[in-house]
This record gives sequence, C-alpha cells and structure tokens, in this order.
Amino acid sequence: MRLRNKPWADDYMEENKHVVVQSPFDHKGNWQKEFNTEQPLHLEIGSGKGQFIAGMGKQHSGYNFIGLERVKSVIVGALKKVLDTDVDNVRLINEDAQDLRDMFETNEIDHIYLNFSDPWPKTRHEKRRLTYPDFLEQYQDVLKDKGQVTLKTDNRRLFEYSLASFSQYGMIIEEVSLDLHDLEDPLNVPTEYEEKFSAKGQPIYRCKVRFD
Amino acid sequence: MRLRNKPWADDYMEENKHVVVQSPFDHKGNWQKEFNTEQPLHLEIGSGKGQFIAGMGKQHSGYNFIGLERVKSVIVGALKKVLDTDVDNVRLINEDAQDLRDMFETNEIDHIYLNFSDPWPKTRHEKRRLTYPDFLEQYQDVLKDKGQVTLKTDNRRLFEYSLASFSQYGMIIEEVSLDLHDLEDPLNVPTEYEEKFSAKGQPIYRCKVRFD
Repeated sequence: MRLRNKPWADDYMEENKHVVVQSPFDHKGNWQKEFNTEQPLHLEIGSGKGQFIAGMGKQHSGYNFIGLERVKSVIVGALKKVLDTDVDNVRLINEDAQDLRDMFETNEIDHIYLNFSDPWPKTRHEKRRLTYPDFLEQYQDVLKDKGQVTLKTDNRRLFEYSLASFSQYGMIIEEVSLDLHDLEDPLNVPTEYEEKFSAKGQPIYRCKVRFD
Repeated sequence: MRLRNKPWADDYMEENKHVVVQSPFDHKGNWQKEFNTEQPLHLEIGSGKGQFIAGMGKQHSGYNFIGLERVKSVIVGALKKVLDTDVDNVRLINEDAQDLRDMFETNEIDHIYLNFSDPWPKTRHEKRRLTYPDFLEQYQDVLKDKGQVTLKTDNRRLFEYSLASFSQYGMIIEEVSLDLHDLEDPLNVPTEYEEKFSAKGQPIYRCKVRFD
C-alpha cells in the first residue's frame, strides 16, 4: 500500500475535506472550530492507516482527535477507516511534521501520541527520532502545561533512547510498560503495526510522560 | 545456601573483620578510614554471594566498595569471594538496610547499586521495594550531590515501577538497557542471579539514574 501510486487520492481527500483538513497551516490556533464540540484535543503524529486514531475517536467521544500523516498513499487508508468507523471527532492532516508550531498555537494540544515512529537506529540520524530534544521542545510549546505524551513502539533501542531523552529534557515518566499486551489494558487501541508485531509474540513498549 | 545454618559464620566473619566491618553504625561519617586509600565510595545494597562487589573491586581499583547483606549465611559466601579475589578495596556489612542514614553520613557515598532486589510484587508491599520514595530519600541523603544509582533486575514489573518512581521523585534517567546482555557492555559485572537468568535467555534490565 505504502509504495503504490494512488492517483484518486487527491480527489478522495478533496471529497472528504470535512475529515482531511485542507490548508492546515491556516488553522493554527483555531483547530477547535474544525470540530462539532470544543473539547480536549489529542494529536497523533504518524497515523499510518488510521486504526489507532479512528479507534480512539470511537472510544473517547469526549475528546477531539487529529491524526498527522505525511504519506498520501497511506493517509487515504486512514480516511477510509475514519469514514467507516463513523466518528465525527477525528480530523486528519496530510503534512510532514517538520515543525508543529507552524500548525498549532502554544497550549493548543492536550495530548500527543507517538505510535511506532521510525526508530532511526543510526547514531548520525538521532536528530530525526521523534523523541530527540528538538521535537520535545515543539511538543512542549504546542501542549498545554503538564501536557502528556504517550509513546508506543516495538523497537527496544528507540524505547531505551526515548526514556532517557524524556527524562533528561525534564519530563516526568508517569507509567512504563515493557509488555503492553501482557498488561491487557482494556483501553489500549492497537495500531495495525502493533497487532502484527504482538501476534508474533514480540513485546510492545509503552510509556506515558508529561512535561513538568 | 540461603536456608542452611552456618554456626561457623560468626567465627569466620570475626577472623576476617578487616573485610566484614564490625559495629558498622559506629563508622558513620568515617568509612574512608576503613580503606587503605581515600577514593570514591560505592555501595551495593543486597550483595548476596558477592560476585558483583568482588568483581567490581577487582575491575575498579580506583574506587572503594561496600557490600551490604543482611543474611548471615549468604554474606559468608561474599566474604569468601572477596578473600579469593584478593582485593583490598572491598568491605562488607552484615546488617539490614533499614535506614542507611544510621550508617552513613550525608554525602558520604558516590554511587549506589541495587542488584536484583526483592520485587515485592504485591501492591500492599510497595513500600518495601528498594525504589519506593522513602528509600530514594535515604539514597539522596547519603549520596553526594548528583550521586548516581544503578539498578539491575530481571523483574519486569519492578523495573517498570522503578523507572516511574525515580522520575517522579525528580531523578534523571541517564541510561536504560532493556536487554543488558544483548548490549554486551564489557564493563558489566554480572551477579550470580544475573548469570543464571541470562543463561535462560531472559532479558536483564538496567538503568543508571542520578539525583538532580
């Protein structure tokens, strides 16, 4: 799915622009107006095929959700999932998360989810990891005071790195799970990747952290 | 070994009181005098049969080491190990770590090791875990400013709990390893437990944290 061209993707997103918000940079500071109800705003960075964001929307009608996904041929899958799930509290953005501050105002977000982000294992690519300090600074800026970040990954090295990075940045680690599916959290919404890896018996790591 | 009586244990420790320090509460603030050289002081809480503390003594001649072990029938094993290893920078204490502040002065210790501590899995026993806030307060008091704690365990739940507890107390997580033996740290000195568990293919967790 990831590599195939989807010439119909632009049309499909245009037809459903009530879900895939167009010109997202114009909405900075006004994201609540894109939703039916003003309520806490949760952002997922890297939504992939959308199972998480659609599932969260359904499970938590008291929150608004935005899913950010830069790959067009992938986000159309998320769009289909959101439409199929029939939730009205989920919006999608087809942009690169270069700098969240271009898209979101200070204190505009309540919670950020990083799900199975690219681990960028090479040390020389450390700056690209979504838990590198430059990104944490962005999260701190767009999140409310004491705003939370939840990270899930199957990549041990990324998880080890991220725990230390969060802590050294001054964030507080509220909860750590080194085998999420053994924990059997009834509120956990798995991503597509997560289901695949967990089915192989591989542990899923999760932590919930917040700014101080 | 743990449960057998060792009637000769008292004699053996008395004969080697240059290693197993008698009346440890009398040495508060003066531990450096028990060593040949004044140099950074590292403390292991729960030394078991002593493979770690003896190995560390041998590997790091530039530090002084104290191993604390409350079980008499176990610490004699550690004593034998220290004598066999022929190190002069390791001392042992046969006491319960009720309150370290009775035995050590403020800022007297440079580094604390918690190796394979009892996980006390039941929530009602949380206060007995050596990473419960009351213990962290003790460590903070006896450690120098920015003093470090290194935790190793094979117990996932204790490790998850400890990371959150350290962070919520205000400590900084410097390094996390979720599979220490995969990391192949050439400086790691394994404990007896560690070798046994690791040989079964079970991951060993380690973190290095410090007070802020």
